[in-house]
Formats: sequence, structure tokens, C-alpha cells
Amino acid sequence: MPAPVIAAVKDYFALETMIGGYEAEDERAADREAAYDAIASLVNAHRRNIAFASSATHALEAALSSIPFASGDVILTTRNDYVSNQIQYLMLEQRYGVRLERAPDLPEGGVDPAAMAEMIERHRPRLVSVSHVPTNSGLVQDAAAIGAACREHDVLYLLDACQSIGQMPVDVKALGCDFLTTTARKFLRGPRGIGFLYISDRALEQGLTPVSVDSRGAHWVEADRFELVDDARRFENWEFAWSLILGAAAAARYASALGLDRIEKRIRHLAALLRTGLAEIPGVRVLDRGREQCGIVTIAVAGREPRDIVLALRKHRINTQAQRRDSAVIDYDAKGVKGSVRFSPHAFNTEDEVRVAIEALGRVKGEE
Amino acid sequence: MPAPVIAAVKDYFALETMIGGYEAEDERAADREAAYDAIASLVNAHRRNIAFASSATHALEAALSSIPFASGDVILTTRNDYVSNQIQYLMLEQRYGVRLERAPDLPEGGVDPAAMAEMIERHRPRLVSVSHVPTNSGLVQDAAAIGAACREHDVLYLLDACQSIGQMPVDVKALGCDFLTTTARKFLRGPRGIGFLYISDRALEQGLTPVSVDSRGAHWVEADRFELVDDARRFENWEFAWSLILGAAAAARYASALGLDRIEKRIRHLAALLRTGLAEIPGVRVLDRGREQCGIVTIAVAGREPRDIVLALRKHRINTQAQRRDSAVIDYDAKGVKGSVRFSPHAFNTEDEVRVAIEALGRVKGEE
Repeated sequence: MPAPVIAAVKDYFALETMIGGYEAEDERAADREAAYDAIASLVNAHRRNIAFASSATHALEAALSSIPFASGDVILTTRNDYVSNQIQYLMLEQRYGVRLERAPDLPEGGVDPAAMAEMIERHRPRLVSVSHVPTNSGLVQDAAAIGAACREHDVLYLLDACQSIGQMPVDVKALGCDFLTTTARKFLRGPRGIGFLYISDRALEQGLTPVSVDSRGAHWVEADRFELVDDARRFENWEFAWSLILGAAAAARYASALGLDRIEKRIRHLAALLRTGLAEIPGVRVLDRGREQCGIVTIAVAGREPRDIVLALRKHRINTQAQRRDSAVIDYDAKGVKGSVRFSPHAFNTEDEVRVAIEALGRVKGEE
Repeated sequence: MPAPVIAAVKDYFALETMIGGYEAEDERAADREAAYDAIASLVNAHRRNIAFASSATHALEAALSSIPFASGDVILTTRNDYVSNQIQYLMLEQRYGVRLERAPDLPEGGVDPAAMAEMIERHRPRLVSVSHVPTNSGLVQDAAAIGAACREHDVLYLLDACQSIGQMPVDVKALGCDFLTTTARKFLRGPRGIGFLYISDRALEQGLTPVSVDSRGAHWVEADRFELVDDARRFENWEFAWSLILGAAAAARYASALGLDRIEKRIRHLAALLRTGLAEIPGVRVLDRGREQCGIVTIAVAGREPRDIVLALRKHRINTQAQRRDSAVIDYDAKGVKGSVRFSPHAFNTEDEVRVAIEALGRVKGEE
């Protein structure tokens, strides 16, 4: 987290401890509202379209539960959607008889946008749901092409931007999505335990409302009647750790000030260096595929468990992340691996650090 | 928040900023597990029955969504359930054709447990859902009597303990509930943005699973298949602000060490003093009703808006909370008021502070 993010979290929490939770809410009311603007500005939206959530998954739940699925409704997704999303789709299949369809990949990896467009026309899905960048590889899905197809056929389009937000420009208008879900804690460099949801005017005007609407999103007016608010706040819960929301807003401002174009360029440069260097190490296989690749660099190391590699690298003060097969069963099975080690260089990393990481991996690989 | 709570939140957050989120998770793995034990111990449960949630409402959502409601199913509740819960019940009515029934109150206030037992027998509800202590008055519902009726007829019983946890002993076995939802931030004195859910072994063994299950609660094993975990973690999301969970656990340990019996006794003593003193002020009406009354003291002040009174008291460094009609339309309409000013003395308050608050209200009442 950058210093302004840490300060935003700490300052608000300190204020709560000094004067009380409701009192801090009042004193910082303007800053709390401005947090919506910071997030809206990051994704080229208006504050009326932004809802905070305690995680991307919670945001996804709110979005999914706003669609009254009926038996036979189709959810169209990809072979690289995030594991928690895949589980949610399967749960909707079990619970409501929704039918799950996955569009095929291109030979070079990544979903085939033409096949997806054809399936949109054929299946008329109730929802198209795509992870912009999967958690399990450097692939960037062609989210804008899918969005264009969704708009052409007037189909609801949900984009999970957990791994893309903060590492590249994410423009909800250009992408044509109705929902965008994300956490603040990844490339955006916000705190843990907070995320947000964008909802398009189209979706709001359809009256979509999550089952979980509470006193944030509705006013209880008579014993058996409530009135919904017009904007995205009906996708929120009333209770929030406002310290984390102000931290997320600070992260959005920080990224916007640096410029997402510049951040993206820098990250892709470092990731390319890293992929090239790692690929030269015997026994190391770079797993990333697809026409467009971003800052997530995934590898398999012959004969070694990902978790062992991660713990060994940590001793060298290099932070990576291990994933097992159950993080991405379709992708890892197709690649014939049992998981991966994930590197995620950010714009603040240096070329020297990339070299150090490559060297460390070379050493660690041979250790028992 | 007591000092150990503040320290728990800050320390974990600082560790994340120093070494990284995943790395902090690993380093504090034992403390994270121990947090479940601290919460379990507070409510006389086992860690397998405890799920954390970002709020009581999020916990309620998980519990409600685990029940596959069908058209005609009855939810039996009271006239004093929390506003957000009431909205959720009405939303389930709209979405799934659930029928909402509210048991009548006793003449002295509070739900009539005998009437509730009779309605349980007559309607065979899919769920009985009760707020132990409403947000809008000092009433304590007879949760144990309702639990006994639910157990007799083998009906699922959800208890919202937001306002009771931390101010009185809450024993899930004695209360006979299947779900208990709560936030950590009220009388428990934990941080904002965290709550928890207790799920009984009975409910777990029925296989109840929220629609929102994700990679915390299930393992993705094949493209179209997932396997659920056995315990309450299938009611959690994967992502958490662990700093807040450790803060909640510290709050639970702090309350348990002081002793909930002692805390309850002290709070009720101070609340009784406060009610007596406030009632003596001309134009002030104490609104709390019911056989058993706790630390929430609510008043209406003739000719004054609750919010104005709260802001005026704040200038005297006295923290209270204003509620409008839409926080409790049934209760406030029955009492003929448009809202209330809520005082919540805790065990750490003194008799002197209660006197100061009464005097301040007397002065403030006359100000314009």
C-alpha cells in the first residue's frame, strides 16, 4: 500500500477510537462521499453507479442476486473465470437450474470473442460473466469485444476486474459492461477487506436489486412496504469499515494521479523481462498464454510444489503466491500442471529487482 | 474500543504494510485460528460453528440464502425486528413468495412467547427470526422461550444478537438457536466492518449452504463440480480484513475476561438510573417497554427532532444516536413518536457520567 493509503486507513480508524463511530461518520461525511467520486473517476463512471462491498465476491453476490434467475436461464462465461465465480455459477445451477456455458478458447489462449458472440446470439444468456484477467495467469481477456457483443444483443455483462483494476486503464464505457466487480487490495494497492461494484444506468433502470437489500438501499415506510433508492447504493449494505473505504479511495486517487497508461506500460515491460528471464532457467516453464499478457507472471517448476518455491523465495524477501490446481482446474489441467507460482511485478518495482527475482528463483529451484 | 482491541487492529494492519497481505496471513495463522475460538467461547459454541462476516447483515444474508425458500413458506418474526432484517423478509416475500407473519406483543411490550409458540405450531414456519434486542428500544425479547418452542417443533431459529452480544451473556445452547448473527462494533466494543455468524450442528448437518459459497467454503474439483467444507466456513467469503477479525476476537476476550454477568449487571444498573433521571425531566418521555429491559435507553423529547438533540448533546461531549421513524416503523408508530434519541451506557460508564448526561439533556431540551 502506498503511504497515502496507509495514512487514510489509520487516520479514520484513529478518529473512530477518539470520538466514536457515528461521530466520525458525521465529521468525515464529505470525505466519505468523495470516496465514491474517486472510485467513479477511476473507472469512468458517476458516483450514482458505484457501490462499495467488503470484497469482490460480496460485490459479485450482490450483482448475481439482483438477477432473478429462472430454470433454464444461461450464464455464459469462459474457461478462465475466477474460481470463486465458477463456484457461484455452479451453485446457481444447483439452486435455480441455471445452465452454465463456457465459450471456447483461441488456439493461442484466451476466450475466442467471435465464438462468444456466436454463443450470445444462440443462447441469449441471462448474463455474460467474464474475469478480465484471471487469477491464475497473465492472460488479458478481450473484454471490450465481448462487451460490444453484449451491447449488440442487449445482454447483461458482468466483468470481474480484480486483477486488472490498478494495473491498466479500466473504462466501463469502453468495455460496455453492466456490472464491474473488484477488490481494492491487488494491483490497486488498497487495503484488504474492501471492494466495489459498478452498476450501469441500464441495469439500474431495469430495477435490478439484490435480495440482500437493507436499510442502506431501501427505506422501510410501512410495516409491509419498503422503497428502494434509485442509485447503486441499493447494492450496498449499511455497515462498512469506513477506514477501508477511505483507503480504497486514496488508492484510486494515487493510481489515477500516476496514470493508468503509464502504470500499464511499466508493468508490462517488467513482466516481459521477468518472463524472458524465468523461461531461460532449466526446469522452469512460463505458463502465461493469450494474445495480450499483463503483469501476472505464472510458472511451474519441474518436480517442485509451488508452495515450497514461494516459502523459499520469501526467505530472500521476494513475495510471490502459490496456487494449487483447485484455483483454476480447467486452466491448470489444460496446461498439465498442478498449480503455479505467481509473480506480480508492479510499476514501483525496478529492473534490478526483476533480475534479483530471476536469480533467486534459479538458486531456490535447486534447493531441497 | 478497549486498548487491546485497538492494538490488535493496528498491529495486524501494520504487519500487512510491512511484509504483505499473504505473508501476514501465514505469519499470524495461529492467531487467525484462535480468533474463531475466542468468538466460539463468547457464545458457548465450537469453532466449527463460527463464520466471520463483514457485518451482521452480511451474516444474515448468508444464513437466509442457505434456506431454499419456496412460495408459501412462512417466516415468523416479531414487531420489533431490526429494520434491515424486516426489509430482507419483505424482499424474500417479493422474490420467492415467502409469507411474513409477525407474532403479537404482550400488553407490557415485547413479543408474546406463548403466541409465538402457537403460531409456530399453526404455521410451521420455515424460519423463526427474532432480534434479541431491537435497535430502537431497551426491550429484551424472551429469546430462550422462543428457542424452546422452535426446538419442540424442529423449526429453524435465527437470532439477531447485534445489540445483546457484549452487554449480556449470550449462550447459543441455552437460547436454542440455529443461527446467531451479530456485528462486533456495538456493546462488544469491536471494530467496525466485522461481524460473525453462529450456525448450529443441526443446521450444518442439514447441509444448509448459502448461495454465496466461494473458494473458502468449497473446493473446485472438476469443471462442473465443487465440494463443500463441512463446517461453518462455508458461510464465509474468502476475503477478509483480518485486522478487523483479530480486533473482534480481542473484544470477545476482553468481554469474557470481565465477565458478561458482571457487565450485564452494571449496564442495567446504569440504564435504570438513566431512565429514572430522564423520565423526571418535563417533556421527556422514556420509550422503553417490556418485561426485561437492557442498556439501550430511548426517549422522545416533546417538540424536538431527535437529530437536533443528539447534535446538541455532542457539544457537551455526550455521544447518543438519533433514530427516525423508518428505523422502526411498527414500534415508533405504536408509540406515537417520529423517532428517538438512544443512550447506550456501558459498563465502563460511571454514575457521575449518567448524572451529567441527565443534566445535559435537561439543559439541551430548552435550547433552540
